[in-house]
Amino acid sequence: MDNDMLKDLWLIGIGTGSLGHLTAEGAQALKDAAIILVPQKGDGKTDLAEIRHRIIAASDTTAKVIGFEYPVRDLEQPYLDGVDAWHDDIARRWQAALASTQVSGPVAMLVWGDPALYDSTIRIAARLAPQPSVRVVPGISAIQALTAAHTLPLNTINGVVAITTGRRLRNAGWPEGAETVVVMLDGECSFTRLPPEGLMIWWGAFLGMEEQILDHGLVQDVADRIISTRQLARNEHGWIMDIYILRRDYVQNAA
Amino acid sequence: MDNDMLKDLWLIGIGTGSLGHLTAEGAQALKDAAIILVPQKGDGKTDLAEIRHRIIAASDTTAKVIGFEYPVRDLEQPYLDGVDAWHDDIARRWQAALASTQVSGPVAMLVWGDPALYDSTIRIAARLAPQPSVRVVPGISAIQALTAAHTLPLNTINGVVAITTGRRLRNAGWPEGAETVVVMLDGECSFTRLPPEGLMIWWGAFLGMEEQILDHGLVQDVADRIISTRQLARNEHGWIMDIYILRRDYVQNAA
Ligand SMILES: C[S@@+](CC[C@H](N)C(=O)[O-])C[C@H]1O[C@@H](n2cnc3c(N)ncnc32)[C@H](O)[C@@H]1O
Ligand SMILES: C[S@@+](CC[C@H](N)C(=O)[O-])C[C@H]1O[C@@H](n2cnc3c(N)ncnc32)[C@H](O)[C@@H]1O
Repeated sequence: MDNDMLKDLWLIGIGTGSLGHLTAEGAQALKDAAIILVPQKGDGKTDLAEIRHRIIAASDTTAKVIGFEYPVRDLEQPYLDGVDAWHDDIARRWQAALASTQVSGPVAMLVWGDPALYDSTIRIAARLAPQPSVRVVPGISAIQALTAAHTLPLNTINGVVAITTGRRLRNAGWPEGAETVVVMLDGECSFTRLPPEGLMIWWGAFLGMEEQILDHGLVQDVADRIISTRQLARNEHGWIMDIYILRRDYVQNAA
Repeated sequence: MDNDMLKDLWLIGIGTGSLGHLTAEGAQALKDAAIILVPQKGDGKTDLAEIRHRIIAASDTTAKVIGFEYPVRDLEQPYLDGVDAWHDDIARRWQAALASTQVSGPVAMLVWGDPALYDSTIRIAARLAPQPSVRVVPGISAIQALTAAHTLPLNTINGVVAITTGRRLRNAGWPEGAETVVVMLDGECSFTRLPPEGLMIWWGAFLGMEEQILDHGLVQDVADRIISTRQLARNEHGWIMDIYILRRDYVQNAA
């Protein structure tokens, strides 16, 4: 299609690996789409591509599935400039992939977890010119997969929850005023940088997938175990996705 | 059933009002349940009861639907003591409602939004004695319904998000170190208590429902409009549920 024929772009949250996470709205959108655009990341996370294809297969959609090559971010540039150029590059690749097809109609993309949470797809879509009408279908996030797996309320009663990244936790420490902290995008088990006394952790990797691993306890008791479990799982699968929740001043049975 | 026959309790997140929010896992759990326990709140929010019944009807489950009376919280007691006694009371009412039926098997409850987010059901379930096996099925939360409706990423790039309540925002102000703040459970438009310069708001009420209302803009431009829209909608429906996201130092097109 011509790029000015891309009128409707649907960003569909698919959850974090379980086919059961797909919502009725997401399933219907997959059926109604004319084209489904899927990334072909060259980074070894083939499990994610496989899950996307399983969801498409299970959806009995008749949409045409088109792949696009995922560019590598230029690590020589300053962080935000690099992200900027990278997003532009991705937007161009979506358009190039669409340009080569005769099919027209709504274009759907399957976004991991919830499209609003630490994901660039909404921002990249905002760069498209001409600007299509962008629809977001919410999806189950890794935070929700983690709390559900642990039967854990996210917040304490009337408490504040901060959602942060491993990098921010290392640089800025515990977010002031929050009883609960959710840490995502952490390759370095950054919870080990906080004072361990009374610090409780609920950790999960590969949430929603067959390989799901859970652990929880006081950081002083379980930190070493989580670090080695994570390392082993990472070696075995070649990659890992993990997330955790922290609470300070934790008193057993009072959360 | 005898209370020691309550072996499996499933807390199913149903999303925030749209039938399309139900996940495949949630739909399957409704089908597999033997009993569905539904609150009969005497608080005029009959729309919520109606949505629950619509979801049950659409699920073609054969489960027996049993109601329980929702107790009123004792407002004379100190806040946390009051919540404590209230939770005990609710747990007893679940058990009383179940005691009167002959049916046995998994008991499901439909929890608004995601069961982990500002909801007491997981905490109440933890008080049951004997303790059943509790399963949580994650659901689309009001935060996700809000970001999807506004096509808005929840976080800034590598930024921290704080989730808080109206009460906490009024008492403690802007959560330090957060670029983005989500405010829930706010009956008082507490955003008006913050310095308005450069403060951006994305607001939504009745998200996912037919009555959905959205607004956004710089607080200095839109605060009065949101306050009056909210008041009018509240008068019309007899109740309202709303939520909003705030960002400070907002520069247009740079979020
Ligand atoms: C780029 S972010 C995307 C988040 C996604 N949009 C969501 O809503 O969950 C990737 C991070 O999410 C978390 N994550 C996503 N899927 C996960 C899973 N299945 N198990 C554990 N963590 C996961 C990890 O912290 C990972 O570093
Ligand atoms: C007791 S909390 C329950 C939250 C729910 N568990 C969730 O995941 O969204 C109720 C608060 O959630 C928000 N909320 C829930 N449903 C909403 C809706 N449909 N529209 C707007 N706000 C909603 C409001 O801030 C409301 O005060």
